[in-house]
Amino acid sequence: MRAVMFHGNNRCVTDQDKPRAGAGQALIRVSLAGICNTDVELAKGYMGFSGIPGHEFVGVVEDAPDAPEWIGRRVVADINWGCGSCRTCLSADSRHCPNRTTMGIAGWNGAFAQWLAAPVVNLHAVPDAVPDREAVFAEPLAAALEVSQQVHLTADMRCAVLGDGKLGILIACALRHACPGIVLIGKHARKLETAARQGVRTRLLEEQLALGERFDVVVEATGREDGLARAMAMVRPEGVIVAKTTVAGTAPLNLAKLVVDEISVVGSRCGNLSLALHYLAQRLVDVTPLIEAEFDLEDFEAAFTQASRPGARKILLRVPA
Amino acid sequence: MRAVMFHGNNRCVTDQDKPRAGAGQALIRVSLAGICNTDVELAKGYMGFSGIPGHEFVGVVEDAPDAPEWIGRRVVADINWGCGSCRTCLSADSRHCPNRTTMGIAGWNGAFAQWLAAPVVNLHAVPDAVPDREAVFAEPLAAALEVSQQVHLTADMRCAVLGDGKLGILIACALRHACPGIVLIGKHARKLETAARQGVRTRLLEEQLALGERFDVVVEATGREDGLARAMAMVRPEGVIVAKTTVAGTAPLNLAKLVVDEISVVGSRCGNLSLALHYLAQRLVDVTPLIEAEFDLEDFEAAFTQASRPGARKILLRVPA
Repeated sequence: MRAVMFHGNNRCVTDQDKPRAGAGQALIRVSLAGICNTDVELAKGYMGFSGIPGHEFVGVVEDAPDAPEWIGRRVVADINWGCGSCRTCLSADSRHCPNRTTMGIAGWNGAFAQWLAAPVVNLHAVPDAVPDREAVFAEPLAAALEVSQQVHLTADMRCAVLGDGKLGILIACALRHACPGIVLIGKHARKLETAARQGVRTRLLEEQLALGERFDVVVEATGREDGLARAMAMVRPEGVIVAKTTVAGTAPLNLAKLVVDEISVVGSRCGNLSLALHYLAQRLVDVTPLIEAEFDLEDFEAAFTQASRPGARKILLRVPA
Repeated sequence: MRAVMFHGNNRCVTDQDKPRAGAGQALIRVSLAGICNTDVELAKGYMGFSGIPGHEFVGVVEDAPDAPEWIGRRVVADINWGCGSCRTCLSADSRHCPNRTTMGIAGWNGAFAQWLAAPVVNLHAVPDAVPDREAVFAEPLAAALEVSQQVHLTADMRCAVLGDGKLGILIACALRHACPGIVLIGKHARKLETAARQGVRTRLLEEQLALGERFDVVVEATGREDGLARAMAMVRPEGVIVAKTTVAGTAPLNLAKLVVDEISVVGSRCGNLSLALHYLAQRLVDVTPLIEAEFDLEDFEAAFTQASRPGARKILLRVPA
């Protein structure tokens, strides 16, 4: 099959063996995949990943030896594959399994290929109402919604999302149904406009710095190492910062302020794909304005170059049958 | 009156005007005060404090123009003095008032003196069952118990306290009533023994590093800038770190681990004095093994030198009538 391969700083589209569905697994023919900023980081050496990248996708089940009822269904899949037998997995929390692999990120060949294998327990059927171009956003939308699974957001909270990249926009658009007054804060009027068209309040960072408003909850989604320090300056005493940015190395934390103001910092990663599919099916979030371009898998290099540009919106990869 | 004065890097015992109780205030004759590590930090320039230090004390109300029922009562007092009119104060949360002063730390002359003034609303009557030598621990014990007010501790949680200084020992002894299996981890067998005698499980840091046990909750009370990084290595995915250490400057935070493992870091400062007095009256925690020595106020320099030694236990200051 045709597949993208990452190896060190090298990447190419190449021929690879088609995977097979083992016990408890499904073989999925990929229809469409999305390039994530994490993929760009992987290409720079993050996680030391070597293999087929890609963890945002939609596809059709072609084989599932133990679960034939899945064959022919359109699916997305949880990207964490737990061992199934440790204390964490037995607590129904396999996404934090210490022995897990992660699709296209760590130890599991991902979706920038014609086929991939995944455990049947990871599959989620895509409702007919959700076209492929939207279903491919299930994974990042789930990550956006994860904030609402960790912090009890209420309608009267003063809540801000810091960072107007793709994830920040998804978070603001998703969380406004819990907290209608949520404010998206960023540096780019054009990007803020994407969220504003869906009813999200927006504010340029320079306006926020002049206003000095303090928030009950600040979701830090800047993708920058200094984002946490900025969020600290925007949160009220006893408030909560939800940290979404993964950067290699360490970020500086003002420990005295954290302790004296009794601030909480909550790390936040992947979320619940069923909830994301519900949001897409109910049209609670419109992801289509986030799509910048589609490329064929064979044109990965051009797609990846475009996705790596600062400020790029979502680049999708069409995968031929 | 006689009082300790801090001014820049200078300190002395000197004559100062006796304070007066204004509207809504009480004048308190100090009986006994405790030297805290924060006082040692203040003397090094932390908070840029200039004035009379001291925020751990017990005394007797001598005057209270608007509340004569307090006169003659033995009291401790909340150390945060809110403005009473801001949004935070009106939410009954004056300890986080942005305009607050803090006893002996910021803008409010403290308890290393014969008298101090405090708002009547800050006073807590000391039960007869609690002698002065124990009542003087109400403030640090409240800070220890604050962890239980922020994080829902349950009996089956794997909970650790990192740091065997005075605060770490108080935290472990206090929280074991919520979480009997709590483990105090430190570098000093002699200090760990103080907690072990009260029934707390203890472990040398080197044993913990060899075991590699992961905890649901880690209370970081090392007083060291690298304590947070150590706590990060000891907490399970989706676990909670409660940060008690205030250090000037910034501590390095492994943001990728925080986000990927969805760890929470909760800053924790002062607590509820009524709860601390209840713990002392019910003898739920024995603070007396933490007392190292008592000095007269006039001998502050010797007391302070002893309190500044690494590993010092609590140094108390007797205040003459």
